[in-house]
Amino acid sequence: MITVRELAEKAKGASRRLARLSTNEKNNLLLAMAGELELQKKGITEANQQDMVAARAAGISGALLDRLDLNEKRFSEMVEGVRQVARLPDPIGEVVKQWRRPNGLEISKIRVPIGLIGIIYESRPNVTVDSAVLCLKAGNATLLRGGREAKKSNRALADALGNAAKKKGLPAEVVALVEDEGRESIPEMCRLEGVVDLLIPRGGQGLISTVLEHARVPVIKHAHGVCHIFVHRAADPDMAEKIVINAKCQRPATCNAAETLLVDQAGAEKILPRLVQALRTQGVKLYGDEAASRAAGEKLVCPANWETEYLDLSMAVRVVDGVEGALEHLEKHGSHHSDTIVTGDRVAAEEFLQGADSAAVYWNASTRFTDGGEFGFGAEIGISTDKIHARGPMGLEELTSYKYRVTGQGQIRE
Amino acid sequence: MITVRELAEKAKGASRRLARLSTNEKNNLLLAMAGELELQKKGITEANQQDMVAARAAGISGALLDRLDLNEKRFSEMVEGVRQVARLPDPIGEVVKQWRRPNGLEISKIRVPIGLIGIIYESRPNVTVDSAVLCLKAGNATLLRGGREAKKSNRALADALGNAAKKKGLPAEVVALVEDEGRESIPEMCRLEGVVDLLIPRGGQGLISTVLEHARVPVIKHAHGVCHIFVHRAADPDMAEKIVINAKCQRPATCNAAETLLVDQAGAEKILPRLVQALRTQGVKLYGDEAASRAAGEKLVCPANWETEYLDLSMAVRVVDGVEGALEHLEKHGSHHSDTIVTGDRVAAEEFLQGADSAAVYWNASTRFTDGGEFGFGAEIGISTDKIHARGPMGLEELTSYKYRVTGQGQIRE
Repeated sequence: MITVRELAEKAKGASRRLARLSTNEKNNLLLAMAGELELQKKGITEANQQDMVAARAAGISGALLDRLDLNEKRFSEMVEGVRQVARLPDPIGEVVKQWRRPNGLEISKIRVPIGLIGIIYESRPNVTVDSAVLCLKAGNATLLRGGREAKKSNRALADALGNAAKKKGLPAEVVALVEDEGRESIPEMCRLEGVVDLLIPRGGQGLISTVLEHARVPVIKHAHGVCHIFVHRAADPDMAEKIVINAKCQRPATCNAAETLLVDQAGAEKILPRLVQALRTQGVKLYGDEAASRAAGEKLVCPANWETEYLDLSMAVRVVDGVEGALEHLEKHGSHHSDTIVTGDRVAAEEFLQGADSAAVYWNASTRFTDGGEFGFGAEIGISTDKIHARGPMGLEELTSYKYRVTGQGQIRE
Repeated sequence: MITVRELAEKAKGASRRLARLSTNEKNNLLLAMAGELELQKKGITEANQQDMVAARAAGISGALLDRLDLNEKRFSEMVEGVRQVARLPDPIGEVVKQWRRPNGLEISKIRVPIGLIGIIYESRPNVTVDSAVLCLKAGNATLLRGGREAKKSNRALADALGNAAKKKGLPAEVVALVEDEGRESIPEMCRLEGVVDLLIPRGGQGLISTVLEHARVPVIKHAHGVCHIFVHRAADPDMAEKIVINAKCQRPATCNAAETLLVDQAGAEKILPRLVQALRTQGVKLYGDEAASRAAGEKLVCPANWETEYLDLSMAVRVVDGVEGALEHLEKHGSHHSDTIVTGDRVAAEEFLQGADSAAVYWNASTRFTDGGEFGFGAEIGISTDKIHARGPMGLEELTSYKYRVTGQGQIRE
């Protein structure tokens, strides 16, 4: 049995091969991978069925079981996703900037692959393909560790991708799948300093915490989102209602769904009853402080705290004093993910947009737009809640590094 | 006594104040800091003298003692450095890119401060000022932990900077100095997740290793440089000699000095005797493999390995087979810092520049140019040997993050 380190070293070697491929070669490889997935569809689907049977036997049900299911529709979307990535522009080789020094040195800053990217994720088997091909388009090899409940599906998917690579004369380990019995490979991946260039954990707090505990390699976290809608005194009530309902209810389990409604003290008693009613109509369970209760004209239960990511149809409501009060709340309780101000007042909007230290700050739009697809990145590997390297939706550009190319005519340093 | 966490939380609060300052306000603060350093010069110099006396009593001498000495010239340069940083363009607020989505959302990617930057460094007291003001120009507060041997100097310098801040109505903790008896504050700084946004260790392997062991916050390493000069068959011999001597001898203790000379097999017996003689004339101690000995026409001692960062007048010499052989050597033994090809052949140069995975790759120039000042960044906080966030010389831009500002007219996600 190959160790995690041995597998990672093979993948690192494969990353060097990928870094030297042309855009056409990478695109052809991606199209071959899409083709190979279709060719292996029967085997992949059978493997997925075995995972489903085992999951049911282990008592898994509901949303978790659903996520594991690689059904007809998801399979087609996954394969189409690979072809879409092939069509995206290649970020590698882009001259980010170039300049000339007084001594005649010509310096260019060039986008290059990162190298080997480790990704640790949970139950969805399609993530195996989605993340491998996005990293590959940016010239990176991947070391993937998916959820154990999807182990047969992931093996079959990685085998198909690896086969396509081999047919193109590349190592199968351009996509390397880590397999373990328990969770022992996670700390091992964290310690592959000098081999893994970046580790991206995608999952719950337990996973993130384990990774941070052990990581000696750079990590970009995809942690939680406690997103806010601040309804300012100068908000258009119709727009405020539409945005609040969308941000909370359209897909409440996502990290860019709103968890907290902040209402400006000035005018709260006018707008809050309407917002509360609209949320109730959508089946939202509301929490609120005393001021919110007064403004809403009904008793709301106080939330346990203001930092909860409900991820369901629950929302906390608080009355704050103007933009400054909203910003104070964000600073103290927010997660710096996505926050919106609804207002018709340009000065207030500017103060909020400037003052909120969030990956994405919105003026008169739903927080639900924090997404690589919605931002126009073509695809995303996740949403970074860090401020280093990448912040917010991570697309192809965020999966690159850079190097400096310096051309001289014999210059030496005096 | 305030704990490291309490101090860091104050500094984090101070960072929020800095993030909201205008360029003018930051520049005025920097000029006030320069003025305050001059005002406190006597006290600072006395504190430095006390550190020097204690260091001598503890048996410290030579280069280490010299680095500790904040003499007249260094003091003036340090103060002038603060004024220079005030004159640099402000990276904050820059619109990195902006675009419009089909649904009408206007998205801008804006440069913002990182927040609180922890810096752990060794004996030079002027680093306290240099790094604090560079971070501050980019809107960041700093949590500084310098060498213990400079503790009185660092305290006096940080007090001066803090006083200037207070006179401007800002918290002194825009520059927060961590003081400890031993090294216990280093692991504490590493664990300040959510408070410290970035940690930059600048020092030897022991320090880097301690930081990686404990870090739960993002780290950008400033580790070692094993830099190479590859003299290709089509090199101009005069240029090759000039570059090799400069890269090895001009300042051998720096991370961008060359440690290994790679000579192309074709023509090695013509050029190597000349290079060996020139290096010997400069007092360089040479190591080499058998092929190098044969080509040089004299017996060279084999190096213990090809990964040593000598940091003195020592150099390893190896004969390799063309660009491909040089790239193989770099991949196996290099540190991906700075590497040069000397050649008159454009195709070979392109192959090397493309294939070498180094922070800075050079064609016909000395590796010694890998430096924020030489690159035209105005100043540098160090040279990153990581590939995440910043690679190579780190100037003001590398001390920033970004956020997305999204402006709508009530858009919701369908």
